[in-house]
Amino acid sequence: MLNKLLITGADGKLGSVCRSRLHGLATTIRLGAREDVGPAGANEEIMYCDLGDKDAVEAMVEGCDGIVHMGGQSIEAPWETIKQSNIDGVFNLYEAARKSSVTPRIFFASSNHAIGFHEQTTRLDANAQVRPDGLYGVSKVFGEALARLYFEKFGIETALVRIGSSFPEPKNHRMLATWLSYDDLISLIESVFTIPRLGCPIVYGASNNDASWWDNRETSFLGWKPKDNSETFRARIDAECTPPAKDEVSAVYQGGEFCGQGILEE
Amino acid sequence: MLNKLLITGADGKLGSVCRSRLHGLATTIRLGAREDVGPAGANEEIMYCDLGDKDAVEAMVEGCDGIVHMGGQSIEAPWETIKQSNIDGVFNLYEAARKSSVTPRIFFASSNHAIGFHEQTTRLDANAQVRPDGLYGVSKVFGEALARLYFEKFGIETALVRIGSSFPEPKNHRMLATWLSYDDLISLIESVFTIPRLGCPIVYGASNNDASWWDNRETSFLGWKPKDNSETFRARIDAECTPPAKDEVSAVYQGGEFCGQGILEE
Amino acid sequence: MLNKLLITGADGKLGSVCRSRLHGLATTIRLGAREDVGPAGANEEIMYCDLGDKDAVEAMVEGCDGIVHMGGQSIEAPWETIKQSNIDGVFNLYEAARKSSVTPRIFFASSNHAIGFHEQTTRLDANAQVRPDGLYGVSKVFGEALARLYFEKFGIETALVRIGSSFPEPKNHRMLATWLSYDDLISLIESVFTIPRLGCPIVYGASNNDASWWDNRETSFLGWKPKDNSETFRARIDAECTPPAKDEVSAVYQGGEFCGQGILEE
Amino acid sequence: MLNKLLITGADGKLGSVCRSRLHGLATTIRLGAREDVGPAGANEEIMYCDLGDKDAVEAMVEGCDGIVHMGGQSIEAPWETIKQSNIDGVFNLYEAARKSSVTPRIFFASSNHAIGFHEQTTRLDANAQVRPDGLYGVSKVFGEALARLYFEKFGIETALVRIGSSFPEPKNHRMLATWLSYDDLISLIESVFTIPRLGCPIVYGASNNDASWWDNRETSFLGWKPKDNSETFRARIDAECTPPAKDEVSAVYQGGEFCGQGILEE
Amino acid sequence: MLNKLLITGADGKLGSVCRSRLHGLATTIRLGAREDVGPAGANEEIMYCDLGDKDAVEAMVEGCDGIVHMGGQSIEAPWETIKQSNIDGVFNLYEAARKSSVTPRIFFASSNHAIGFHEQTTRLDANAQVRPDGLYGVSKVFGEALARLYFEKFGIETALVRIGSSFPEPKNHRMLATWLSYDDLISLIESVFTIPRLGCPIVYGASNNDASWWDNRETSFLGWKPKDNSETFRARIDAECTPPAKDEVSAVYQGGEFCGQGILEE
Amino acid sequence: MLNKLLITGADGKLGSVCRSRLHGLATTIRLGAREDVGPAGANEEIMYCDLGDKDAVEAMVEGCDGIVHMGGQSIEAPWETIKQSNIDGVFNLYEAARKSSVTPRIFFASSNHAIGFHEQTTRLDANAQVRPDGLYGVSKVFGEALARLYFEKFGIETALVRIGSSFPEPKNHRMLATWLSYDDLISLIESVFTIPRLGCPIVYGASNNDASWWDNRETSFLGWKPKDNSETFRARIDAECTPPAKDEVSAVYQGGEFCGQGILEE
Repeated sequence: MLNKLLITGADGKLGSVCRSRLHGLATTIRLGAREDVGPAGANEEIMYCDLGDKDAVEAMVEGCDGIVHMGGQSIEAPWETIKQSNIDGVFNLYEAARKSSVTPRIFFASSNHAIGFHEQTTRLDANAQVRPDGLYGVSKVFGEALARLYFEKFGIETALVRIGSSFPEPKNHRMLATWLSYDDLISLIESVFTIPRLGCPIVYGASNNDASWWDNRETSFLGWKPKDNSETFRARIDAECTPPAKDEVSAVYQGGEFCGQGILEE
Repeated sequence: MLNKLLITGADGKLGSVCRSRLHGLATTIRLGAREDVGPAGANEEIMYCDLGDKDAVEAMVEGCDGIVHMGGQSIEAPWETIKQSNIDGVFNLYEAARKSSVTPRIFFASSNHAIGFHEQTTRLDANAQVRPDGLYGVSKVFGEALARLYFEKFGIETALVRIGSSFPEPKNHRMLATWLSYDDLISLIESVFTIPRLGCPIVYGASNNDASWWDNRETSFLGWKPKDNSETFRARIDAECTPPAKDEVSAVYQGGEFCGQGILEE
Repeated sequence: MLNKLLITGADGKLGSVCRSRLHGLATTIRLGAREDVGPAGANEEIMYCDLGDKDAVEAMVEGCDGIVHMGGQSIEAPWETIKQSNIDGVFNLYEAARKSSVTPRIFFASSNHAIGFHEQTTRLDANAQVRPDGLYGVSKVFGEALARLYFEKFGIETALVRIGSSFPEPKNHRMLATWLSYDDLISLIESVFTIPRLGCPIVYGASNNDASWWDNRETSFLGWKPKDNSETFRARIDAECTPPAKDEVSAVYQGGEFCGQGILEE
Repeated sequence: MLNKLLITGADGKLGSVCRSRLHGLATTIRLGAREDVGPAGANEEIMYCDLGDKDAVEAMVEGCDGIVHMGGQSIEAPWETIKQSNIDGVFNLYEAARKSSVTPRIFFASSNHAIGFHEQTTRLDANAQVRPDGLYGVSKVFGEALARLYFEKFGIETALVRIGSSFPEPKNHRMLATWLSYDDLISLIESVFTIPRLGCPIVYGASNNDASWWDNRETSFLGWKPKDNSETFRARIDAECTPPAKDEVSAVYQGGEFCGQGILEE
Repeated sequence: MLNKLLITGADGKLGSVCRSRLHGLATTIRLGAREDVGPAGANEEIMYCDLGDKDAVEAMVEGCDGIVHMGGQSIEAPWETIKQSNIDGVFNLYEAARKSSVTPRIFFASSNHAIGFHEQTTRLDANAQVRPDGLYGVSKVFGEALARLYFEKFGIETALVRIGSSFPEPKNHRMLATWLSYDDLISLIESVFTIPRLGCPIVYGASNNDASWWDNRETSFLGWKPKDNSETFRARIDAECTPPAKDEVSAVYQGGEFCGQGILEE
Repeated sequence: MLNKLLITGADGKLGSVCRSRLHGLATTIRLGAREDVGPAGANEEIMYCDLGDKDAVEAMVEGCDGIVHMGGQSIEAPWETIKQSNIDGVFNLYEAARKSSVTPRIFFASSNHAIGFHEQTTRLDANAQVRPDGLYGVSKVFGEALARLYFEKFGIETALVRIGSSFPEPKNHRMLATWLSYDDLISLIESVFTIPRLGCPIVYGASNNDASWWDNRETSFLGWKPKDNSETFRARIDAECTPPAKDEVSAVYQGGEFCGQGILEE
């Protein structure tokens, strides 16, 4: 059991899921957030922090032996936004981890958008080449590389989790392959923090969906077996959504609509 | 949902299974057959056609947006028979598809006999080298290659399904590995026609049997999860069939008895 | 069904499990042992034999059409001990098999310690390089190589089963990945002796554990599907055992504590 | 040294190169041709034969212990032409080989057009999936599959040589990668007929060009080392040919212009 | 032949080598530099520019159909330095390329330090996982990912060249494997700009050294054959340099001394 | 440069080649031999020793920082002979190395007979499965595994060199693929002892022959480039030797005649 687990982005969607579900993992949960997260609950402490602020990040990280990094920008945005949160912010996080009095283990929320330009008819494993589908995806490649550096050089272990689409339910046909249920997200985080030795593996964050593009065979040592299956929702999705035509970007590429976007300008 | 689904070989074993089970896939089912298939049912239309007759094939294919190609010769035969049905016939089918006013998606009933000379102790995936075990198997390699050409050049999508042994129940020890239940065949056809983008994948058509030689990992994007398991029938097979000795052709090669046949002459 | 199945090491832990569970496989069970195994039961015959005694081994093997080789040294020991049981003993066994009036099929209890110096974060399949973690592991590499020779040269089929940790229950965190339940061990032996053609495959002997380092994909032709899952015991293990730190040998290497031992001297 | 070597297509370009260069391989050279090949030279015999004529092919093949099969259609053509020469013709050839009093070894002139729809930026080896770029390419896939069948079933060895562009000199930018000099073609044929055991390998027929898409690593056992290099001709080609734009079919696909052709009709 | 080739970092070591050797590739050479590069020669134009200055970069890139990007930080440095040159600077470069009236092809000087934490006893090809050995290496991973994005989304072709050690002569034992002679660097650049279709390949920039860690097999389509061999210099290096002990960082990792550095602070 | 290099088997064929060619590698050459090796030359010392004599082996190994292990049995022999030299003898050697006051680096003369049952039409690299072709081959697999253990556990580096056929000239058709010239053997030994970090790689010991079954790509870090080519001798071999028929053991398997031998009895 961890002593102090930091959840960054605690004011975001997945951050709040983690807040409500991970109390069993640590004596204290520290919530890192930019926006208001309400009052601290039992065994919670709150630290407001901008990831671009190096000193604040160091203070937030100090003393934590686990970090679930959900913070930062989680969709495509203009370069300055991406850079501040996901380039500088991640650098600040790893520097803080290196300087902390306790070496933390880290769950890094990477994204399928790091490999979004692979076609949906292709199966990927941890050895797949990166093919980011936007500046957001490029920033995740950066974060994965930085984490790998800090693992090799300083022994900081990170799970590089390329999250698919983590929502209460899949919302469209593409998500039949990419959906990650909250239960499966939580069980993955638990695996990451309870296995004796983690290393720095790339893991694809998707539930046990019938339709699948990603192969976690290389990380079976984690013992993570997702239980949910998007197939449960297929009838509803068929009823509510028009499936894309075969040449639409959301049917061709794993990254879906992201692959069709241009570079966003301020 | 398809507008008009053509089932070729509707007078054959698998063709009639399809006829009775695929009505949910299309507004109209067109039945292509050489022999009598009885009266047309609701939403059915019947077209008698020899696959070697180019004009008849064009008429049969015209207007269909889906084709389940079960027609042609399905076991070893003399060259002229194979050639007419499975060489000329398949060429006629793809030419008709190319010329049709509607570009159809095709389920092509290929066969494990395209790879039948691999040993049973070897696991194959979609990248395995072909090793046909007879003229029939060679004709299936031809069909797969032709389908690939029409995909690359004209965008006609085909699922190249190397069907194992599709029967109500497995009949002998070899079929413990090769059996494809009718339910699983039908669910595979449904996956092929409902996925937004198919491409031109090679799929092995076998149920979820404990004993397995084939790996569909590369086509998990289809979301097809066969549910039946030949293991259910093992006790009965053990009771009814003498297992082959270790050096008999039906124990050595994936294609079984086909590998022991000579070239059939007229 | 076999005529006569020899179980070597019948006085050992796994040997006695086999004795009590394999009567359905053969008309007669012959028990090979060094220590007392009590009185012969129905359809049992007992032959006391030291594996280092060539003539005794020939007598023990003669007439058997199946051998489950559980005999020999099963943990690290000084060289002379290892050599007598697992080098000379295995040579004697295969020579006896070659000379026997009946060519037996063999289940060879190899060990995960043949590949014990691979890291736990690495997934292995049958093509993995050997990395023995002690003299015991080296002797298992020797046995696998000898079995392969006798397969290629004399057609003697052997299943080279790299057994993980076969106990009634997993005993520590490492065994969450390596545990092989007795039920799954027995069902594997049954598969080995009932499949028409075995060849000389490498199989990893582990149950269907959530945490897994080993991939039996290449031997799916066996039809062996382990049913038990160490996960059932995780809570108890968490309660009873302190998990190793990330840099302890039992967290780093697949062979666990064996990797930390020196060469034992007499 | 062979007793009697048949060169089919002796009236064609590569056939006549073979005629003039292979006399050292066999006591007698038999020339198979449709068109006039002039008078027979020393140790030559001539047999006029249409590959679609089964009896004529049997007569032509009878008694030969080596066959260089250069005959048949060598560029894209309407289906009936392709079928007669490269489908029926190849079937007739292998049937004749099977029935011959002498089992011949065969050099089968397959073509890069069997894999022409792979991109030029991809490196292929003998395990590459076929991607034919026309009916001609499909017929070569057929021929390779048929040869494989006759190897597995009847022990007839064939070298499946996917010839690139065999001309005195490369003619355009694409041929910098695909060029096979006549010297290298001849030395390949010599290797095929002098190695004690050939099997049925796929070989890419290209010279030792700096620019290369094909990897013959898997067939290094042949000992064939092409000596010529298209680079010698680069300056001339740069001077004489406009290089294609990056999105022209001759710059995108290995099959070059073939990939841009439609289906030819009679 | 290019119309206008931009060489960034023209004031640096490799930039000046390019300046003096690439005049044959383009009608005009535009030199991008921060420091003084002397007077413009024939067919040269000079643009002083800081890569962190977006508008200046756009002006520098405008109108160029080729870019050799040697600019930016080329060794480890504090984060702010790396970020300005190699993160922001590269983003500015690709944005400028996207906005330019002419779509340029780009030679991107990536680095072996993107994969520096692989061991020297491991052979890498284009599919190797990144393992950067410092912030510099991480920035090169970023640049490669960004280039890939602009290729997939906007069709901008880039050669991602992981340069080893480009000096007039190798300087120490590690460089026997990593050395890239100036001649071979120049011939690689020429290949990149003359091949009709480039795509976005990863290429290892090392000469034809006997000792080699890197495999360019996947990019043989480029037709680049380095001619120089570090072996020529082995005697001198043996005389002048003490080889590292087997456990020194410069003998263990491909990145050499970089792997032993800490994070540099301002 | 080494201080003291031990050459075992100095009374054997390859041992004496080493004796006469390796003086440049070490200040002192220690010759280990069973039979008379004549008087010690300059900088030579001689130690007569039976590899089965543990104490003698310890004395022989003590103080050496390099070992070329050419000693032991080098062709098929009865089990007791193999066991004494190549099982016990190799164990004694590695134990001596472990106990020595100086940790030596070792060149272990393994053999192609460790993989002799692979077919000649198959290309092997360092990851190939072992397929020994006799007790001799099995003993080499044992030696490789033991060396790997002592590398992982005690840091003793060994080059596992699967020597093909090392003679002044190739003697038959098989040796066109397996020949290792003395010059190339010596240059390989030099590479092994001069590279700063060796690890424990598997290397195939064959010259730069046109015909090749083995791929040393994985060990290109050694910088070993064999220079000789058996092709030089092809004409002579063709003149002097009848090539084997395609189904003779010397044409089928890499191990050649060894594959056809039985188990030798005393």
